[in-house]
Amino acid sequence: MALIIQKYGGSSLETPEKIKFVAEKVVKEKRKGNDIVVVVSAMGKTTDNLIKLAREITPFPPERELDLLLSTGEVVSVALLCMAIENLGQEAEGFPGYFAGIKTDSFHTKAKIQEIQPARVKEEIEKGKIVVVAGFQGLSPENAITTLGRGGSDLTAIALSAALKADRCEIYTDVEGVFTADPKKVPNARLIPVLSYEEMLEMASSGAKIMQSRAVEFAKKYNVVFVVKSTFKEGEGTMVKEVDLKEGVVVSSVSLDEEQAKITIFRVPDRPGIAGKIFSALGEANINVDMIVQNIGRDNYADISFTVNISDLEKAVKIIEEVKKEIGAEKIIPDKDIVKVSIIGVGMMNQPGVAGRMFKALANENINIEMISTSEIKISCVIRRKDGEKALRILHREFIET
Amino acid sequence: MALIIQKYGGSSLETPEKIKFVAEKVVKEKRKGNDIVVVVSAMGKTTDNLIKLAREITPFPPERELDLLLSTGEVVSVALLCMAIENLGQEAEGFPGYFAGIKTDSFHTKAKIQEIQPARVKEEIEKGKIVVVAGFQGLSPENAITTLGRGGSDLTAIALSAALKADRCEIYTDVEGVFTADPKKVPNARLIPVLSYEEMLEMASSGAKIMQSRAVEFAKKYNVVFVVKSTFKEGEGTMVKEVDLKEGVVVSSVSLDEEQAKITIFRVPDRPGIAGKIFSALGEANINVDMIVQNIGRDNYADISFTVNISDLEKAVKIIEEVKKEIGAEKIIPDKDIVKVSIIGVGMMNQPGVAGRMFKALANENINIEMISTSEIKISCVIRRKDGEKALRILHREFIET
Repeated sequence: MALIIQKYGGSSLETPEKIKFVAEKVVKEKRKGNDIVVVVSAMGKTTDNLIKLAREITPFPPERELDLLLSTGEVVSVALLCMAIENLGQEAEGFPGYFAGIKTDSFHTKAKIQEIQPARVKEEIEKGKIVVVAGFQGLSPENAITTLGRGGSDLTAIALSAALKADRCEIYTDVEGVFTADPKKVPNARLIPVLSYEEMLEMASSGAKIMQSRAVEFAKKYNVVFVVKSTFKEGEGTMVKEVDLKEGVVVSSVSLDEEQAKITIFRVPDRPGIAGKIFSALGEANINVDMIVQNIGRDNYADISFTVNISDLEKAVKIIEEVKKEIGAEKIIPDKDIVKVSIIGVGMMNQPGVAGRMFKALANENINIEMISTSEIKISCVIRRKDGEKALRILHREFIET
Repeated sequence: MALIIQKYGGSSLETPEKIKFVAEKVVKEKRKGNDIVVVVSAMGKTTDNLIKLAREITPFPPERELDLLLSTGEVVSVALLCMAIENLGQEAEGFPGYFAGIKTDSFHTKAKIQEIQPARVKEEIEKGKIVVVAGFQGLSPENAITTLGRGGSDLTAIALSAALKADRCEIYTDVEGVFTADPKKVPNARLIPVLSYEEMLEMASSGAKIMQSRAVEFAKKYNVVFVVKSTFKEGEGTMVKEVDLKEGVVVSSVSLDEEQAKITIFRVPDRPGIAGKIFSALGEANINVDMIVQNIGRDNYADISFTVNISDLEKAVKIIEEVKKEIGAEKIIPDKDIVKVSIIGVGMMNQPGVAGRMFKALANENINIEMISTSEIKISCVIRRKDGEKALRILHREFIET
């Protein structure tokens, strides 16, 4: 008998029919003799609709009240899934996050889990009940309802797995697992059976939007092994865990991030502190900068290029226009026409030839590389948007299919 | 400086625009220097829609889960109203019912309030905040969320008024107060400025659907004075309180209940226990019987007529068909074509001529009375449906307009 945590996302609970399907899945697992805790997200587009409603009251809703509002979405899922489970003859106990003992800090809309007090959840498990917990939410030290930010339900599932010392943690979603590349763009893409935390993290920041980084980081920290798999299709999914360095497999996946934009500042005086001015101004505006390249030019001038999320581009340009006057740069050119292509693999750091192979494979197909960044397990290149999908297929062929 | 409890119903909170209007009303009262606790219902048809959703999962949703589901409706109202209040520059604190210290028994979907522990609410009032509480819900001894049944938000407001010793309790709704008769049917109907608890109670059971009996009973028990008034129209409304017997005014209102139906059982053997059999069978099926008339006929047979809510008619007939075999009655005739017209007034019991005047006024207009029931402060007659509105106007003229 194992204790299994299952998490179902909003698209898996979109309609009463899908909720009934999920209930059957849960009950089937329970009847194998296992204990089950289910973590649920809000149904379909509920969260987005609630945010829309709040914005009709005020364009910038206060965060504490927004959390109270949003928390209702998952509670609806909890109640409906419990009904569906009981309708199949199995006892269920539903917990809003704040009753499940999930204690967070006070940072509304992006609260961090501080502690999990799972006594009540445990009690119901011991009674033989299927426990259904609202994901994404907790309780602050002031006893206000908090939410954990985007992807928060995954985090709830991972954290509950750690607190309950679960035997298995299953993240159900609308994809079959993690692939070597986006199957919609690379027909030869394959499911990856086992992935390390580090690789999963790099994928989250490379455009493969399967899970938010925070949940994966938490899993890594507490060594929670989890499986990402499809709600509606049978399959083994992808297991994410601590992986020993493998000799053979070097690159485990390739990914394409189409939501980046590039800003180049031309002829920046090459003085100490200039780059600091630029990037702290962006940081203060909460704009995340991904890649940075500085080309030292002649005459003590440099050109600085960096990438931001495309949704931040306009705001970033406005801020840099201000900074430009101060630092005396020549001009600013924003560029939406780029993408970032990455190869990811935990074994890469021991294989010095990998970067060269990547650049050569792209060059052979006349794809120009505009920026490069490397980490221990990832190499990313900024290229023209039109070359994106082609580059993805080339790199998949070069590193995965061979 | 007074402590005022204001309750706003679902139709007053139907849209973001209406919520903003309510916020302005609340803030205006606060800025007069008063302390305010607002009790809210779910927006518009939210509760009905949630029930519909639950029935798509299972035709008979388990009640505990149904309560958890329904409780989200008022929490959405709490969050949105708090946002609207804060947007006007006033601090607000929102409480789901289970955080507001409302302790109930464990009878889900119709829980009774056992105790109110208003410490947290008081604390926020003392900080100068406007407190917004979700109506209709509480917490059971098992720490499960309960709901108080139809009209439960009124009950929350009245109970909080008692617990907090409020100076005023205002029930805001879509009518201007309690009228001497339904203004849609009786053009001369007038607003009643002051009404006793007893009259208000009799009106609730006579077809004037302004408030559920339970909230009024609670107010009477704890002597909570409350005012029923319109959210969107200015006016003094109707104050409901302990009223000294008035000499002058005898009948304070007339009402018409169009949701009754009559069942007649013909030739029931007139033996002890027969009526008990009939009405306990109905009671077990949770069917409420309003008026009962038994005509003792010849040959030890009697005809029994009674009224039930029209929505229970079909179910009641089925049950009586069963009982009929057992008791050996002749036949059963259901009749949807009746209504109940009532006159209500706290001074009536001291005026023996009132009943006679009522019957005579109806007879003068050729309206036939089929059943009569009387209480200390109410006389009701069952008449043909087609005569209903005419009877209402006749009685209004006879007792109110003179």
